[in-house]
Amino acid sequence: MKPAVVLVSGGLDSATTLALARADGFRCHALSLDYGQRHRSELAAARRVAASLGAHEHRVIALDLRGFGGSALTDSGIPVPVAGTGAGIPLTYVPARNTIMLSLALAWAEVLGSQDIFVGVNAVDYSGYPDCRPEYIRAFEAMANLATKAAVEGHRLQIHAPLIDLTKAEIIRRGAELGVDYGLTVSCYQADAQGRACGQCDSCRLRRAGFEAAGIADPTPYHTAP
Amino acid sequence: MKPAVVLVSGGLDSATTLALARADGFRCHALSLDYGQRHRSELAAARRVAASLGAHEHRVIALDLRGFGGSALTDSGIPVPVAGTGAGIPLTYVPARNTIMLSLALAWAEVLGSQDIFVGVNAVDYSGYPDCRPEYIRAFEAMANLATKAAVEGHRLQIHAPLIDLTKAEIIRRGAELGVDYGLTVSCYQADAQGRACGQCDSCRLRRAGFEAAGIADPTPYHTAP
Repeated sequence: MKPAVVLVSGGLDSATTLALARADGFRCHALSLDYGQRHRSELAAARRVAASLGAHEHRVIALDLRGFGGSALTDSGIPVPVAGTGAGIPLTYVPARNTIMLSLALAWAEVLGSQDIFVGVNAVDYSGYPDCRPEYIRAFEAMANLATKAAVEGHRLQIHAPLIDLTKAEIIRRGAELGVDYGLTVSCYQADAQGRACGQCDSCRLRRAGFEAAGIADPTPYHTAP
Repeated sequence: MKPAVVLVSGGLDSATTLALARADGFRCHALSLDYGQRHRSELAAARRVAASLGAHEHRVIALDLRGFGGSALTDSGIPVPVAGTGAGIPLTYVPARNTIMLSLALAWAEVLGSQDIFVGVNAVDYSGYPDCRPEYIRAFEAMANLATKAAVEGHRLQIHAPLIDLTKAEIIRRGAELGVDYGLTVSCYQADAQGRACGQCDSCRLRRAGFEAAGIADPTPYHTAP
């Protein structure tokens, strides 16, 4: 089996991405970043997801991005928005987060001798995040193929973003077909310590609407009445 | 003064880069990465360099790359080469290191409202490192300009690599003109706890030859007779 590095956050999208990478026949090395996110239970979810979907191994890299500030996800002084997704780039955007995570995946891929990185970015629901767009992923791949010893020696690296053009409902249907247990995942930006969701933040709204549109029962535990 | 993020490792090249950024009129935010490198004294050197060259502030971000392995600089099981620089990519190459460091600089630059990142990469002496080449730097810059909220809003980011085409002697002469105290810097891959150099690794050889070619006395403290 060819090795792949799969970025696993603990959320719905990356769980589906891991299931797709496994279905494609890859030996999956799951990678999570502990960047000081306020939704800590997503890291516990990442562990459950990696184990339940047959990842070969799972590593959590600690890198404290709180020192840089600038995001509602890492700065407790900025409230998580609950007013619904609007135009523009949301407060929950973390500066250069996907670039940092893909860079770490790149380092690990090179050490593993892997030419494949999977990331669950999505341009439909997250159009406000520049680092979830197809042109960004292509530019990262081009850079990565000039960055490493492996690439320079001819082992081309590919960034797989299999969800990039899917709606949330399509992602959920695809994952359900592959047996993903979405009850293990945490999407909420302010989940409690048990991983129960608020039901109100942008991420919760998108997720709940996705289950409704997919016609699949929402297994999410909520800590407030939704 | 416009803010710039300057990657400062504690070595000769990044000290010169910081001096050049200051001479260009930037308010310099120095950034170092504690990645588990065996030459720990380079981080102490980074602090001295940042202070002596008038950096506005200096942050050290901890990110343990030892878990990934694969380099003589982070894996104590791989000896540092002392046989001289040969063809190909050296054992001291750290997978994706510059990509990771530039990604962190990108995050901080966005939070600071900075459009300028300085990095002391050099393609002359480090032609064996893919991530020290001009085409790599251009590709990173292209990716960065698709990655962030700031770039998408029209604030173009520039990666400055002012040493990229200089020889070691040219770098040293330029830094000496700007008052860089190279006695504060540590280049050695296996410096001792006091920052004294081995005089034998590739980095020491390049550095010593640079001072000779520049006609400038080498201020490096050695822990073995050179």
